Amino acid sequence: MSELRRDPISGRWVIIAVERGKRPSDFAPVSQKRKIKGFCPFCPGNEHTAPNEIIAFRPPNTAPNTPGWTLRVVPNKFPALQIHGDLNKRGEGIYDKMNGIGAHEVIIETPDHLASLSTMPIKAVEDVLWAYYFRITDLKKDIRFKYVLVFKNEGEAAGASIEHTHSQLIALPIVPQLVKNEMTSAQRYFELRDRCIFCDIIAQELEFEKRIIYQNDAYIVLSPFAPREPFETWILPKRHESRFEPREKSFSLLADALQTTLKKLDAVLETPPYNYVLHTSPFQDEINEYYHWHIEIIPKLTKTAGFEWGSGFFINPTSPEEAAQFMREATV
Amino acid sequence: MSELRRDPISGRWVIIAVERGKRPSDFAPVSQKRKIKGFCPFCPGNEHTAPNEIIAFRPPNTAPNTPGWTLRVVPNKFPALQIHGDLNKRGEGIYDKMNGIGAHEVIIETPDHLASLSTMPIKAVEDVLWAYYFRITDLKKDIRFKYVLVFKNEGEAAGASIEHTHSQLIALPIVPQLVKNEMTSAQRYFELRDRCIFCDIIAQELEFEKRIIYQNDAYIVLSPFAPREPFETWILPKRHESRFEPREKSFSLLADALQTTLKKLDAVLETPPYNYVLHTSPFQDEINEYYHWHIEIIPKLTKTAGFEWGSGFFINPTSPEEAAQFMREATV
Repeated sequence: MSELRRDPISGRWVIIAVERGKRPSDFAPVSQKRKIKGFCPFCPGNEHTAPNEIIAFRPPNTAPNTPGWTLRVVPNKFPALQIHGDLNKRGEGIYDKMNGIGAHEVIIETPDHLASLSTMPIKAVEDVLWAYYFRITDLKKDIRFKYVLVFKNEGEAAGASIEHTHSQLIALPIVPQLVKNEMTSAQRYFELRDRCIFCDIIAQELEFEKRIIYQNDAYIVLSPFAPREPFETWILPKRHESRFEPREKSFSLLADALQTTLKKLDAVLETPPYNYVLHTSPFQDEINEYYHWHIEIIPKLTKTAGFEWGSGFFINPTSPEEAAQFMREATV
Repeated sequence: MSELRRDPISGRWVIIAVERGKRPSDFAPVSQKRKIKGFCPFCPGNEHTAPNEIIAFRPPNTAPNTPGWTLRVVPNKFPALQIHGDLNKRGEGIYDKMNGIGAHEVIIETPDHLASLSTMPIKAVEDVLWAYYFRITDLKKDIRFKYVLVFKNEGEAAGASIEHTHSQLIALPIVPQLVKNEMTSAQRYFELRDRCIFCDIIAQELEFEKRIIYQNDAYIVLSPFAPREPFETWILPKRHESRFEPREKSFSLLADALQTTLKKLDAVLETPPYNYVLHTSPFQDEINEYYHWHIEIIPKLTKTAGFEWGSGFFINPTSPEEAAQFMREATV
């Protein structure tokens, strides 16, 4: 029989429709393998087609906005928000609005057009995480901003408009609703038990084992108890950390956890398109006892989210226990 | 400059990215016009391929599960939830779960394979609304159920797996999260002001005019102030009604509002795929002063919802004022 499961953090209910039991091969593959096709604005030599770089990892003898870099962060050429100006918070009758002030940046993860986060050298994955961290740390200094949303759209079906592998970040003068809901819910749990709900989940998952996909000394990768979509996967630090940060001045273990997860997704689901979103504490309450940063990865396997995203109620044809088993057993 | 706008009911923030200003013709059309292609389980003559009908609108001289009907409601052949059994609510460590008990039904809206809600006779649209109402009223008697989620996936890109026009409903032993959030938020507003927030929104929109698409004596159709997606459209009763119900024993005015809206969407966006979801009060608190039932329609215009649905933060390239103007001016 199907099960109704409640995600303890967001409160959303999900039907795990085991009778529909979809295995990896039941999803139409939309392989995201890259090929060089025509002009690419993110490839070396074409630096002039993007706005000037904000930071880059490059040898000291190379000039900004010229080849030689291994990673670049540039402003989005078509930003959803602009960096200059005042917020001018105001009402329109009973509504609330403000100017679209913020930062919208692109992290070009590698000069190699054919690489992806799952195939590039592990050191390059570490650099991507450092780029996230440096940009968050820098944008935090701007008192207009309350949150930096870091995300990745991998593959056209997941919303990537440029093939060359990249992530994005948006610095926001507000805290996104899902993060706010998670904070409130985690705070409530903490008031009741004096423990972080994520820490409790991790302890329990380590005991149950069945939803664990991978772990190293610092990070755990698991299928959440009530996943919205098949093969939804979360990466969390094992010890309590409220904000995204390196572990002992290194991102090597997180890079290992992230790349291993993506390699496993590639192996099980034939290089699927996916989205991931970094969930971390808002700047205002960055260091706290109740919230636990993590990365949520959702492969894009079904044609549409349909009514589900519009109702906050999800039907998932693949149980997280089964997904975790496929992922765990995939050799990469 | 872009604007950040807050939806007063859900609390979500949306960027209205006017610089990206997408007009209707900027969206790649994925026309949902129907053609007869091969066997259709919902066409007259094939009644035996679906489970037995729950209700049907048919002449008295016709037998159940035979042709002659104008509308049928049947159990979903591959239900996400099953009707028989106990909920058996239980924990799994800190998690909450229950058996997948519920109803999952399909409303076959017309025997005409080529028809759609926007093209069928208005009387047939009324019948669809009556079918929703009858089924909700019947399922309410089952004390296991707290909510009936009525929705429609129109077109393959919006998740419809069968071309023949149909809606679905899922009776649930829980209240979906988005509805719960809306209830809580509306309740809070009511405590503060002793007024329904939706009624206030309607009064204000009638004054502003710029986001109104259509109205008749009983219903108003508008672009919400902070739409998640381009051309998101809401239909609400003008007077306070907390639960979905006919007006003076008739659905004629609601059918008029719904069909006019869908015809306008077809005209402006070339028969787009879409999802709609009926938002109504949970059974337990059906008649109340603070919540206002409504229908939310979201055309499926972009390839993916991407990171946006995963973060609760949306970038919408079409302002609701512009969308409303296109919709208002479309002659149907």
